[in-house]
Amino acid sequence: MAEREVRLADLAALIGGEVVGRGDALVRRVASLRAARSGDLAFFSDGRYRAELQATHASAVIVGLPERDATALPRIVCADPYLLFARAARLFHVDAPLVAGIHPTALVGPGAEIAPDAAVGPHCVVGDGARIGPGSALGPACVLGAGVSIGGGSRLHARVTIYAQCEIGPRAVLHSGVVIGADGFGYALDEGSWLKIPQTGRVRVGADVEIGANTTVDRGALDDTVIGDGVKLDNQIQIGHNVAIGEHTAIAGCVGIAGSTRIGRHCMIGGAAMIGGHLAIADRVVIAGGTVVTKSIDKPGTYVSVIPATPSREWRRTVALLRNLERMAERLRSLERRDSGREREK
Amino acid sequence: MAEREVRLADLAALIGGEVVGRGDALVRRVASLRAARSGDLAFFSDGRYRAELQATHASAVIVGLPERDATALPRIVCADPYLLFARAARLFHVDAPLVAGIHPTALVGPGAEIAPDAAVGPHCVVGDGARIGPGSALGPACVLGAGVSIGGGSRLHARVTIYAQCEIGPRAVLHSGVVIGADGFGYALDEGSWLKIPQTGRVRVGADVEIGANTTVDRGALDDTVIGDGVKLDNQIQIGHNVAIGEHTAIAGCVGIAGSTRIGRHCMIGGAAMIGGHLAIADRVVIAGGTVVTKSIDKPGTYVSVIPATPSREWRRTVALLRNLERMAERLRSLERRDSGREREK
Amino acid sequence: MAEREVRLADLAALIGGEVVGRGDALVRRVASLRAARSGDLAFFSDGRYRAELQATHASAVIVGLPERDATALPRIVCADPYLLFARAARLFHVDAPLVAGIHPTALVGPGAEIAPDAAVGPHCVVGDGARIGPGSALGPACVLGAGVSIGGGSRLHARVTIYAQCEIGPRAVLHSGVVIGADGFGYALDEGSWLKIPQTGRVRVGADVEIGANTTVDRGALDDTVIGDGVKLDNQIQIGHNVAIGEHTAIAGCVGIAGSTRIGRHCMIGGAAMIGGHLAIADRVVIAGGTVVTKSIDKPGTYVSVIPATPSREWRRTVALLRNLERMAERLRSLERRDSGREREK
Repeated sequence: MAEREVRLADLAALIGGEVVGRGDALVRRVASLRAARSGDLAFFSDGRYRAELQATHASAVIVGLPERDATALPRIVCADPYLLFARAARLFHVDAPLVAGIHPTALVGPGAEIAPDAAVGPHCVVGDGARIGPGSALGPACVLGAGVSIGGGSRLHARVTIYAQCEIGPRAVLHSGVVIGADGFGYALDEGSWLKIPQTGRVRVGADVEIGANTTVDRGALDDTVIGDGVKLDNQIQIGHNVAIGEHTAIAGCVGIAGSTRIGRHCMIGGAAMIGGHLAIADRVVIAGGTVVTKSIDKPGTYVSVIPATPSREWRRTVALLRNLERMAERLRSLERRDSGREREK
Repeated sequence: MAEREVRLADLAALIGGEVVGRGDALVRRVASLRAARSGDLAFFSDGRYRAELQATHASAVIVGLPERDATALPRIVCADPYLLFARAARLFHVDAPLVAGIHPTALVGPGAEIAPDAAVGPHCVVGDGARIGPGSALGPACVLGAGVSIGGGSRLHARVTIYAQCEIGPRAVLHSGVVIGADGFGYALDEGSWLKIPQTGRVRVGADVEIGANTTVDRGALDDTVIGDGVKLDNQIQIGHNVAIGEHTAIAGCVGIAGSTRIGRHCMIGGAAMIGGHLAIADRVVIAGGTVVTKSIDKPGTYVSVIPATPSREWRRTVALLRNLERMAERLRSLERRDSGREREK
Repeated sequence: MAEREVRLADLAALIGGEVVGRGDALVRRVASLRAARSGDLAFFSDGRYRAELQATHASAVIVGLPERDATALPRIVCADPYLLFARAARLFHVDAPLVAGIHPTALVGPGAEIAPDAAVGPHCVVGDGARIGPGSALGPACVLGAGVSIGGGSRLHARVTIYAQCEIGPRAVLHSGVVIGADGFGYALDEGSWLKIPQTGRVRVGADVEIGANTTVDRGALDDTVIGDGVKLDNQIQIGHNVAIGEHTAIAGCVGIAGSTRIGRHCMIGGAAMIGGHLAIADRVVIAGGTVVTKSIDKPGTYVSVIPATPSREWRRTVALLRNLERMAERLRSLERRDSGREREK
């Protein structure tokens, strides 16, 4: 990748923030405080890495307002150093160029419409009537069912599967192993065995959505499963049928969301949280990693139910006491009774 | 898909239930209460959606006995509306027709036996001596190892991997990204490093099993991993080596079952539950979502160990109190001692 | 597979242990106690299977020192029967022979260097400048990005994806569905929507690493994600960006490790454990299955935070009491106050 060299003052004009120190310092790459060398721009936004700010070999750094004088390096001072770092990283980053066209080993069904400047990688299978928008690219071995539609400017990495009739919006990024539109888990019990209910809804994914490696989003049973604009899903997430996820909600890895649950907008859900079915979660709710949600949440705020790891001997005692809590409550009641008896005696 | 239009009374004759209201109402599709339009048959089985029963535009509905008079719409009244809805949905549903034959881009090893009416999709790789039963279909890019056998009437969606020698029964549905028969996690510790134990067992999957997207079932270390008839596995489940799952057990997404555990028949395991290794779980056990099972369960019933999400400030106090439970128990004991001392003084 | 028949005494000379009983007993396979037939060597290392030791039809067994006289069968007695069984199993196991060469349906980019005795399976896609070491084998439909390097003697099963520039060490085993090097989950919040931060680090995997089916390891944001030598990862694990895992650590299925966390050497992490981001876990730490780790751990030992499954009625009472713990503590304090008031009155 070609690297562009840029003056710190010119960079600040593009990304924001105030330059303190030499504005003519040249930077051509972003790097971590620890790994940065001459020519690199680093950033400091997490107090845990303060020692690294002192020791860095970066040519310039982005820091928050309280750290204005915490370094002698040329610096950009701003309210949100992580955001400005993100902007700088995007400026310096050059994606591999897209080679438009359909690879000769790809198979494209009748009636499929593929934009002339889109790319379909080797060994892809594109179903009948599927549509791929301008500037979109499918990596190797993607499989799109009949009638699938992919908005413009989207990127599917290798080995993504999208089942028939599902829709992906523009500027999507889908990572390797993603499966969109597999059947939801729907059965009726019929004298002890499970009768499969045909899953005839679709998945509709909005604009600017990123979906991490090996994440799965099931198609709806009757209506659609819906992922809102700007939603970011990490790896290995499972989204059940008929779930709806509001705009700009971010969900970390290994989360499971059971069927028909509605998640609000601007929520943040921590890794490995588990959210039950048929619930409604309000906008701007934060769920801590590992938390289990079994009831609807109607107010913004942070919710948690996780007990942090404890040395095992200590934990064994805690669990024993927990199991004994009812007995303890009874003993307390009995003491209270005797205590008030004694008060009456006085 | 062609849609068949049917009189409500004729439908009830096929699926059961009593028709109340106009039996000549015509329906041609199933739909949710909310989305239903004219010509649609909806169902009501979950009290949370009662308002939608009143507002639906469906032409007819399936309701339970207590809702016999809860709507003026033509209706089928029955003991189990969800089951009758499932039957109706199956009647209306027409699968895409199977195009038999081996796609020219598929590779089939010597000695493989593929039924003449089976379908092998593009870019599939079928190993030496594998067998695919009548009416079965492999989607694109499936990989079957040597000696794999697939029963008749089975459907493998795109990108399923089955390692060598594993057996899949008839009428299986395997979703995209499923991996059957990868090595179990078996190592012996040899002076601080891990010595891999060859995993030479197989996976045997019974009849009428459905396995969700990106679910993995490991082959046995010596003996086989066994999935019983009628078992339904949701997405992103991990089944360790030498696990046995009894007939008609249903397991929701993100569940992990560690090695050598035996799950009974007709169990239901909620999403993200975690079941330890070398356990035995009885028939008809229900495990709530998110629950951790560390001991065998020998009685039917519902088991749970999940603490529901709580506002974080409140939860922080609860955890502090929990960690302090031992001290609290001591204080209670000390009060009891003083109390009984006082009783003796009297 | 050809089977070699070997005298028990000769086997003990290779794997260690003391022969008790007939050293000329012939064995040609390893098997479980339960399934063993004549000619099989079984082992006993888990007290739960004691009845099977008595009933086995094996020709010989490996037992621990305390079981020296627990069977009349020809036996190898040793301190660690599981380790000796592993050694025996490896001796008897013969891998399918590697067929060197690049399959005609595979696509290899310019500048890729593939060792002459390596194997590239059907429908693989190998990116520009990738390197595959001697004796390594790629199963069907693997996708290697540009510049990927795979050490010698490695085995990639079907459908493994490795993104550009990532490095895999020698003697790796990567199972089907593995995704190495997808983008880490990195965004900055920009007025309510998420701005993607380019993930420009790589993944570096050391020597002798095994990675289970559908496990994902994200590339670093700036620096690399690092998996140390001898690490064993089970199925469906998610490793976030910039995580470092120390040598010979073993991690069971469904574990999630959030970004920038450093795990020590020789750790063991149980299934479905969840480890938060930016933590440091010391060497030789054991985390029980299902445990949530939210703080760094600086001492070896076993850590846990899991409450075992409980019959639901009982559990409901426990949760109610837990939620009421603060009130209980207040009542205890109030009793204590009255009690010490009474002491003062005396």
